[in-house]
Amino acid sequence: MSPASTENSVFLRSLLREPVPYTPVWLMRQAGRYLPEYNATRARAGSFLGLAKNPDYACEVTLQPLDRFALDAAILFSDILTVPDAMGLGLSFEQGEGPRFAHPIRTEQDVARLAVPDMESLRYVFDAVSLIRRQLAGRVPLIGFAGSPFTVSCYMVEGKGSDDYRLIKTMMYSRPDLLHRILDVTAQTTAAYLNAQIDAGAQAVMIFDSWGGVLADGLFQEFSLTYTQRVISALQREREGQRIPVIAFTKGGGQWLESIADAGCDAVGVDWTVNLAAARRRVQDRVAFQGNMDPMALFGGEDAIRAEARRVLDAFGPVGKGGHVFNLGHGISQFSPPDAVAVLVDEVHRYSRQFHV
Amino acid sequence: MSPASTENSVFLRSLLREPVPYTPVWLMRQAGRYLPEYNATRARAGSFLGLAKNPDYACEVTLQPLDRFALDAAILFSDILTVPDAMGLGLSFEQGEGPRFAHPIRTEQDVARLAVPDMESLRYVFDAVSLIRRQLAGRVPLIGFAGSPFTVSCYMVEGKGSDDYRLIKTMMYSRPDLLHRILDVTAQTTAAYLNAQIDAGAQAVMIFDSWGGVLADGLFQEFSLTYTQRVISALQREREGQRIPVIAFTKGGGQWLESIADAGCDAVGVDWTVNLAAARRRVQDRVAFQGNMDPMALFGGEDAIRAEARRVLDAFGPVGKGGHVFNLGHGISQFSPPDAVAVLVDEVHRYSRQFHV
Repeated sequence: MSPASTENSVFLRSLLREPVPYTPVWLMRQAGRYLPEYNATRARAGSFLGLAKNPDYACEVTLQPLDRFALDAAILFSDILTVPDAMGLGLSFEQGEGPRFAHPIRTEQDVARLAVPDMESLRYVFDAVSLIRRQLAGRVPLIGFAGSPFTVSCYMVEGKGSDDYRLIKTMMYSRPDLLHRILDVTAQTTAAYLNAQIDAGAQAVMIFDSWGGVLADGLFQEFSLTYTQRVISALQREREGQRIPVIAFTKGGGQWLESIADAGCDAVGVDWTVNLAAARRRVQDRVAFQGNMDPMALFGGEDAIRAEARRVLDAFGPVGKGGHVFNLGHGISQFSPPDAVAVLVDEVHRYSRQFHV
Repeated sequence: MSPASTENSVFLRSLLREPVPYTPVWLMRQAGRYLPEYNATRARAGSFLGLAKNPDYACEVTLQPLDRFALDAAILFSDILTVPDAMGLGLSFEQGEGPRFAHPIRTEQDVARLAVPDMESLRYVFDAVSLIRRQLAGRVPLIGFAGSPFTVSCYMVEGKGSDDYRLIKTMMYSRPDLLHRILDVTAQTTAAYLNAQIDAGAQAVMIFDSWGGVLADGLFQEFSLTYTQRVISALQREREGQRIPVIAFTKGGGQWLESIADAGCDAVGVDWTVNLAAARRRVQDRVAFQGNMDPMALFGGEDAIRAEARRVLDAFGPVGKGGHVFNLGHGISQFSPPDAVAVLVDEVHRYSRQFHV
């Protein structure tokens, strides 16, 4: 199926700062635990990895939120840690514990052994992309994604989630050469991975730098943004005559918007601490923005959700030569009431039309 | 003892942007678990609260880091949660679990019952301040502190630490009137508390807004900064003819430096994501800055510690009409090697002289 045949291209055109009738909206982690139908599929799959590694299940949960809500894009159901799993680190998810790697990368020997894996080991992801594209049948565009090299490397070195990033930062400060090699291999792998998703049918790709914001100024640029940029520059940006937009999202990256915007992406994803009016001025609409309502606003009840959606849209203001894709500033909470999403999507679609004239 | 008799006033003068021979340095949480002598005293005290509520123990641990390192300031050993404890919320620290309140503030009734407590219930803090001042005998100045009303309220509503702030944000979005009342009572209490610390001998005060940075732009200003500002404006700023400088620290506040600087403080504390050169330009040296090395840099070994210290000092540059107090960008990790602090203090004192000419 050619991207040109997508019926609803408001999302893709917004990323490219082309005129659209309203502000499109999708939500990070929109296929997830806040939906009972997701939990039912996950129960059938037996585990999170069983879900992510089975293209039929991955397709099923990817489409679930689209059947409930008038969202303007689908995003592949997967996990950013498929990449190091393919590198042989042995990914598992303990119940209620988050991800764990059996073989974290800590020593010079560990680092020396790292290599770009054969993309065949990630075939299940590309199969899911193809299947989802077929099943979507052009309703909305499909987003592919990967973690940023730095974010993925955090898990590779720490071996699991962390609240102080002590192990990777100890490596960064004491043996920067080792971390640079991990990042280099991960960046090469990530570029190949995203290109294969695009080959399989992804119509836009997003790079999640969830943890770049924990780095000091200067070191964010050296250890995170440089490698995100390297991934972006290695991506195919056109496929079957259609531009493939790239979104770079950095949680906690509000102070570095100018340099993120200059990393080669079409759109910058921002968290809720960013003022969108100031952000547009700072990058002079050279890129589109994606964001940025606080996911916790979905707990405030209908009036608060509508008010917060309007606050985000008002901050961006008349879209003009810019581009705005509405999203949360981070993934939707598993505790969110599903009805809140319906309210949000309705308000964004309704209220934003005045800004597209 | 009059503040004027303090032998080493480099810290106080830096906060007031007066000329000094070198950049002063102290570390957030410098009296803490990374020091074996602290752990020994805590063991004798039986618990964290036993330590914090006993002026003799609090004095002992406050002075410990000064006996090891050439630090330029002492900070009262206490906890930001003494304030809601005095409000009757029932503070405890479970082993390895962090703080917990027996009576968190969740309902309209809870909020209605909140009141500014009698400062006599915090007498143990003021006694500790007086004792520490006597024991310091003018070696270095003593800093008093409190949490920001928003940060303290996070714990009051959540009842413990949180990683998504769901309860307080649900209240903020759905019943902002309730949260405003909690913040109002907490701000009044905090102002009285800091003024009593100043009466007891604190020579500078710091307000820790550890969690303001989790708020959306716009809501940070409304729910956090407004109340920090209210505390600052209620503080006595001179005592025995000496100016009492105020430091406002907001973790994750790098995007809001201008408005924090305008909140009435003498110095803005910043985390390691902030570029100090850009920060100075943004506020045009109207305030001093305190910060901002990544606490994790202390794990990098001597060369890395010295290099990172120089990077922070170089970013600030020639001090001129500005003011710089060196610190970490957040509290020192309990896992830090104590020797790393000696290296850091040495490098800051040595390398910074060139910037004070």
